[in-house]
Amino acid sequence: MKLTTMSGFLHLLPAEQLVFNHMLETVRKVYESVGAVPVDAPVMDRAEVLLAKAGGETEQQVYRLTKGDTDLVLRFDHTVPLAKFVAQNLADLNFPLKVYNIGKVYRGERAQKGRLREFYQCDIDIIGSGSLSVNYDAELIWVVSRALAGIGFDDFVVRFNNRRMMSGLFQHLGIYDLKTQVFQAIDRLPKAGPEIVTEMLQETGVSSDRIDKLLEIITLKGTPSQVLAELEKLDIQQPLFKTGLDELAQVAKTADMLGVPDKHKAVDLSIVRGLDYYTGTVYETFSVKHPEFGSIYGGGRYDDLAGHYTSHKLPGVGVSMGLSRLFAVMKESGLIKAHANTSAKVMIAPMDGADDAQVGMACDLQCALAAAGIPALIVWETYKNFKTKMAFMSKLGAKYAAIIGGDEAAKGTVVLKDMGSGVQQALSIREIVEKVGK
Amino acid sequence: MKLTTMSGFLHLLPAEQLVFNHMLETVRKVYESVGAVPVDAPVMDRAEVLLAKAGGETEQQVYRLTKGDTDLVLRFDHTVPLAKFVAQNLADLNFPLKVYNIGKVYRGERAQKGRLREFYQCDIDIIGSGSLSVNYDAELIWVVSRALAGIGFDDFVVRFNNRRMMSGLFQHLGIYDLKTQVFQAIDRLPKAGPEIVTEMLQETGVSSDRIDKLLEIITLKGTPSQVLAELEKLDIQQPLFKTGLDELAQVAKTADMLGVPDKHKAVDLSIVRGLDYYTGTVYETFSVKHPEFGSIYGGGRYDDLAGHYTSHKLPGVGVSMGLSRLFAVMKESGLIKAHANTSAKVMIAPMDGADDAQVGMACDLQCALAAAGIPALIVWETYKNFKTKMAFMSKLGAKYAAIIGGDEAAKGTVVLKDMGSGVQQALSIREIVEKVGK
Repeated sequence: MKLTTMSGFLHLLPAEQLVFNHMLETVRKVYESVGAVPVDAPVMDRAEVLLAKAGGETEQQVYRLTKGDTDLVLRFDHTVPLAKFVAQNLADLNFPLKVYNIGKVYRGERAQKGRLREFYQCDIDIIGSGSLSVNYDAELIWVVSRALAGIGFDDFVVRFNNRRMMSGLFQHLGIYDLKTQVFQAIDRLPKAGPEIVTEMLQETGVSSDRIDKLLEIITLKGTPSQVLAELEKLDIQQPLFKTGLDELAQVAKTADMLGVPDKHKAVDLSIVRGLDYYTGTVYETFSVKHPEFGSIYGGGRYDDLAGHYTSHKLPGVGVSMGLSRLFAVMKESGLIKAHANTSAKVMIAPMDGADDAQVGMACDLQCALAAAGIPALIVWETYKNFKTKMAFMSKLGAKYAAIIGGDEAAKGTVVLKDMGSGVQQALSIREIVEKVGK
Repeated sequence: MKLTTMSGFLHLLPAEQLVFNHMLETVRKVYESVGAVPVDAPVMDRAEVLLAKAGGETEQQVYRLTKGDTDLVLRFDHTVPLAKFVAQNLADLNFPLKVYNIGKVYRGERAQKGRLREFYQCDIDIIGSGSLSVNYDAELIWVVSRALAGIGFDDFVVRFNNRRMMSGLFQHLGIYDLKTQVFQAIDRLPKAGPEIVTEMLQETGVSSDRIDKLLEIITLKGTPSQVLAELEKLDIQQPLFKTGLDELAQVAKTADMLGVPDKHKAVDLSIVRGLDYYTGTVYETFSVKHPEFGSIYGGGRYDDLAGHYTSHKLPGVGVSMGLSRLFAVMKESGLIKAHANTSAKVMIAPMDGADDAQVGMACDLQCALAAAGIPALIVWETYKNFKTKMAFMSKLGAKYAAIIGGDEAAKGTVVLKDMGSGVQQALSIREIVEKVGK
């Protein structure tokens, strides 16, 4: 029997799982910090529901199964189950609805480097009924910034743009009819470079002078306010352009007001996202030092979340992060520091596990720490000698060891050892709770 | 297209999902409070691995699918994936290994009242290499008590017993050869009552006087120390009985030292669990007011976690709670209080969303609250009038509304309204953070 983890799946060792879960927890807290509520869709649903709007590629990739006479697929993203859920519960939800979904999704792609088949996707969406303020688009830049900073990834820029404005620009350049192809060409710019994009546009039938003009505009560089000023100067009169530019300016302004520093945000007209699904604001987030990580947080504004399930208009804006993939690439680049093999901060070691006074004191300390919300564990096992016990504790890697011997138990004190510095001191239970709780 | 949640699956509305997630989070914190590390197995694995020791019933129930040429099964519990994981990573793990696994498992049973097909199982296990102190068995009684109290379920008793002692008792009564059937009969006692159990034992071939003696012993009542004293008095000399009784006494004693009150624990000789898997301590936890909930937290001591995957002896002890089922029955009994439709504690409402001073102040307040770890949201939407805005906020149900009008923005204050009491006062941003953070 092969005892291996299947290709495309992660099954982390405890030390790494602790780091990963801490990241998940951080993202969850940031999503909740703006009031978002959790949704937790079933991992599978009827194929006719989940594949209602899916194309051939998705159908190829899904994990599909039959149970009884039900044709089921595992969810391949959070958006489709969310659309169904919102359509299903329209009358019971409050709009604007701010929701998040952090959980595993499944794509049976050929496993290749960096491609996972089971991975955590961390989504947050705000969904309006009929309309939705563009300030939510700005709020998500703040959310992305804090989530990434929170997981210890400080080297990123949220690049954002507005597809409505881009459509107006295409009108201005007389290439609006080729919109879908032009968006797809621009979408390749970060990865493929300007030559390839030029070729793609030429093949589509865009004239050379228009390609030059387009490339000049979409490669505008600078802080958001500098780029916005350049765009104003173009003096383009198409209403679509003006509306989109106003939205973009509003998003930049509110993101400023929420304190997102300029080093973490940029107006970038080459960010358009390939999908026609997006209609206004679009985002992609890249690492500065590691552009090879690709976009680590993407999303945008859509006009209609659940058109396949309801005629009720549900405009929304959302972002999504593939945390498993980010973790994998961070690990490969040495950015994951996994030290501890325990979630305990204190390892409590009675010298003699058969001595009632020592064990009683160990229990008292464990209870006092629990009451203060400090994780701790009692090392119950007996070892050959105390050195072996200390070696086990070193491997576990909690910050402190609390050692209880006969003398200590008699005096009502515990020897607290800082496992990093080696410094140790005799303290009462109350003093320990105070010291390690800091 | 049917927009319904499939039978046997839960897809909760936000207010209930918030409560459910809070319960999950509480259980997680309790598991981590004793230093347990998370494991997060893939939701699916090769059928040959997951079904290695499964019987016919399990094979019938599993969700099974084929991808490429791989025969896959969705996990139906956490124990089997854990056994595989430990066997697979023996050299990289520290024993005793304290692990927890909180996640969804899948059983395609006929959906009937209270039976779920997708549900959260919350497991914690301690696994030794070769041997494992019985004090871990006691620790789990403390863990179960705190987890249940933490999720607001204070009406429970952890009933525990020792199967080794029971085997010794069967030797003493001369019915050891019928051990498996006797355990199965006793296991029915809480649900089926003594008459049925007597019938079952008679059919197995146990004589009437032995049945009477057995029923007398297994229905002993009292505090753990009272029951233990009665057991001592029986003066049974079988070594298995004595070893088991010593273990049971040790578990009771350490649970006492960890401060588990007698109202939450009982030595109960009718708790034996049907499975031969368990060898020492066994637990079941029942609600006092709602015995119809069945066992809400069960588990026990096993001699060998991963015998199907490795020859390395891995004794362990674990408990498991089916949180989705508990949530469902608590909800049915009116024990779930779902109030808020937001995770925010403060709803920030600028009176005029187009006024820069008001919006700026709203952003400052949101940032200050985020920095203090207090969830908040800005109500960006414009409404017909302020009354409509307040109505929306009432429905959202956060504890406070922070209202920013022109006067307030000019003075640098915000009107903080307690949505419960209706009391409102003008405060600075710093004062608000201080007040709502309490």
